Amino acid sequence: MAAEIVNPRSDSGTEGAPEEPFDPAFALHRGGKMAIQATVPVRNKDDLSLAYTPGVAKVCTAIAEQPELVHDYTWKSQVVAVVTDGTAVLGLGDIGPEASLPVMEGKAILFKQFGGVDAVPIALATTDADEIVETVVRLAPSFGGVNLEDISAPRCFEIERKLQERLDIPVFHDDQHGTAIVTLAALRNAAKLTGRTLGDLRAVISGAGAAGVAIAKFLLEAGIGDVCVADRKGVVSSDREDLTDVKREIAALTNKAGLSGSLETALAGADVFIGVSGGTVPEAAVATMAKDAFVFAMANPNPEVHPDVAHKYAAVVATGRSDYPNQINNVLAFPGIFAGALQVRASRITEGMKIAAADAIAGVVGDALAADCVIPSPFDDRVAPAVAAAVAAAARAEGVARR
Amino acid sequence: MAAEIVNPRSDSGTEGAPEEPFDPAFALHRGGKMAIQATVPVRNKDDLSLAYTPGVAKVCTAIAEQPELVHDYTWKSQVVAVVTDGTAVLGLGDIGPEASLPVMEGKAILFKQFGGVDAVPIALATTDADEIVETVVRLAPSFGGVNLEDISAPRCFEIERKLQERLDIPVFHDDQHGTAIVTLAALRNAAKLTGRTLGDLRAVISGAGAAGVAIAKFLLEAGIGDVCVADRKGVVSSDREDLTDVKREIAALTNKAGLSGSLETALAGADVFIGVSGGTVPEAAVATMAKDAFVFAMANPNPEVHPDVAHKYAAVVATGRSDYPNQINNVLAFPGIFAGALQVRASRITEGMKIAAADAIAGVVGDALAADCVIPSPFDDRVAPAVAAAVAAAARAEGVARR
Repeated sequence: MAAEIVNPRSDSGTEGAPEEPFDPAFALHRGGKMAIQATVPVRNKDDLSLAYTPGVAKVCTAIAEQPELVHDYTWKSQVVAVVTDGTAVLGLGDIGPEASLPVMEGKAILFKQFGGVDAVPIALATTDADEIVETVVRLAPSFGGVNLEDISAPRCFEIERKLQERLDIPVFHDDQHGTAIVTLAALRNAAKLTGRTLGDLRAVISGAGAAGVAIAKFLLEAGIGDVCVADRKGVVSSDREDLTDVKREIAALTNKAGLSGSLETALAGADVFIGVSGGTVPEAAVATMAKDAFVFAMANPNPEVHPDVAHKYAAVVATGRSDYPNQINNVLAFPGIFAGALQVRASRITEGMKIAAADAIAGVVGDALAADCVIPSPFDDRVAPAVAAAVAAAARAEGVARR
Repeated sequence: MAAEIVNPRSDSGTEGAPEEPFDPAFALHRGGKMAIQATVPVRNKDDLSLAYTPGVAKVCTAIAEQPELVHDYTWKSQVVAVVTDGTAVLGLGDIGPEASLPVMEGKAILFKQFGGVDAVPIALATTDADEIVETVVRLAPSFGGVNLEDISAPRCFEIERKLQERLDIPVFHDDQHGTAIVTLAALRNAAKLTGRTLGDLRAVISGAGAAGVAIAKFLLEAGIGDVCVADRKGVVSSDREDLTDVKREIAALTNKAGLSGSLETALAGADVFIGVSGGTVPEAAVATMAKDAFVFAMANPNPEVHPDVAHKYAAVVATGRSDYPNQINNVLAFPGIFAGALQVRASRITEGMKIAAADAIAGVVGDALAADCVIPSPFDDRVAPAVAAAVAAAARAEGVARR
């Protein structure tokens, strides 16, 4: 059917646009990276009378009478909205909704490939937090979950909180929680490898944006000994008078040791460095860390500490890069988390579900645990099913599952 | 990858829900009717480095610098939002967004099957016209077009107009224009069959909702001799004092003959009856129509005039049903219209493009033209390509194409 229609994908590019740069990334992106697929036939009158009128009317009526049937008879419980406003895209910053679309499509196909979850890119033409919240609330009937993506701090915190308050489907800002979950997974295994527990460790996080704040809160939730966060002006401590609301909250929650001053000062004797800032940490500061330290330098493409330097002082080194061992990659978390949450129709993603996800990721490493293997490969196909099962079980245990 | 994840589709239904009714429509709808498909591989590190970071960053940067490249390097120009508020779903009325989803999914897979166009169901949790407009404007960066669906009159008129004013992508309320286009196609061929032109015909439309209003305006645009519209209270004429804004506009545009009173009165001597009301027209009134009349009784499942009755008086009979000849089915129009509009990146769908679509549909019938064949079968695979080509050419001719 419709085989003769000229597919826009096969056409030549924008008229008057420059020649396509000779680059395999551009060639791959031509026409986008995704499509819709019908999962039922509509080839003849009989098909149409079931999938469309008149058959569909019975299904609509049943849902109108018993609303929860929408999960059974539509793709709602299988599909996630990947929502952005294009303000904090990769390392590129505020590039706007259209320019963010290739990333959102990439995210969508990772959802499908790794988690079997359908996902739709929704790049919004507004950066106003309340407008984003209102818009997503209005979209929610069509989706089983909301993955917030590349929305800049501090708006991302408020948007996520308000959305989760108003919606009974999971809302998950991956830049915060995905990163935090995979970081915890790596940290658990690094601690295990060096004969310690989380409670024995003091961590220093460089970066007080979405990821830094979320990692700090999540590591506390998981029972870390102590953690402090540093922004460009140094340790986020209660004696500072330049703090935003979010940073004031962080100052109150973290930094038992009562440190202040520079990141370098805080690193002296620290067990863990977690870099989500994009800055650079001098080798001299890394050298002052405690014995058997862990350096997770996750900035991409340039880690805060080069792995070759980190290895001189640290027992375990992890980065955000795929060309070094121990890649902290969110794809280890979000596909399985949403697969598990959707499977049991969870109304939200709780702290317990996130910790279960981290433990499941860590658990996949098993006997392969080594300094260059504290986290599974992003392509280890045991990860997503293990995460999904753990998240589903945790959702049931925490009373947020609806089946 | 992820093969072991329990697919929500294969799971049993809502806990505590009644047994699934023994009905093939319910069985077919389980788990929904559509899915996302990746069109590029993400199986290994090299794939990921092109489709996601770091490769994707170059594509994002290029779009940020030259915004129209979003059409080349994302699925935007291939994907339509199917937007509803669930207020006028099939014959079911205001059943809300969740219960409308099976219809929106059905529409989406028809877009794909017949037009090769990707479409995403967006059922909104608001019925406020301004909120719907704001929401769709914010969604627009992610889509190449907007198909409005099953939104009740008169809000649908205002919503479509405001959206098209604010967006540079096609906005098309199918319940209005799709129906009008296919009606015009059938009417052209019926006139040809009986040796007349559109200008020779006086039509009476039963129903002043979305479809009735759109058909009246469109037939005038196409050059019909005269047309009048009747609602439940009779002919919509300027002497009535109970008219809404939209009906006042219709009264001013239509009814050259200056008729008033009942639908039955207006039918006396009329050449064409077009039913989009769901009521019933008495046989006695049909009997008063002109020689070689056309009866298009499109209410579903119960036509305003039963085809067996209509055939006693009319030269050509059409319905909305698939079990009678001459089915007026929107699927003949919307897939090809959006395929053509997206192909040339039209900024809107003009009257000329709609007339070109109607003519293309009519043209496919060709030498097969007969009283029981004034319109092609919905499954005639020549239709969508013909419509797409005609719409693309008309868009270029009218200056709304961007390539």
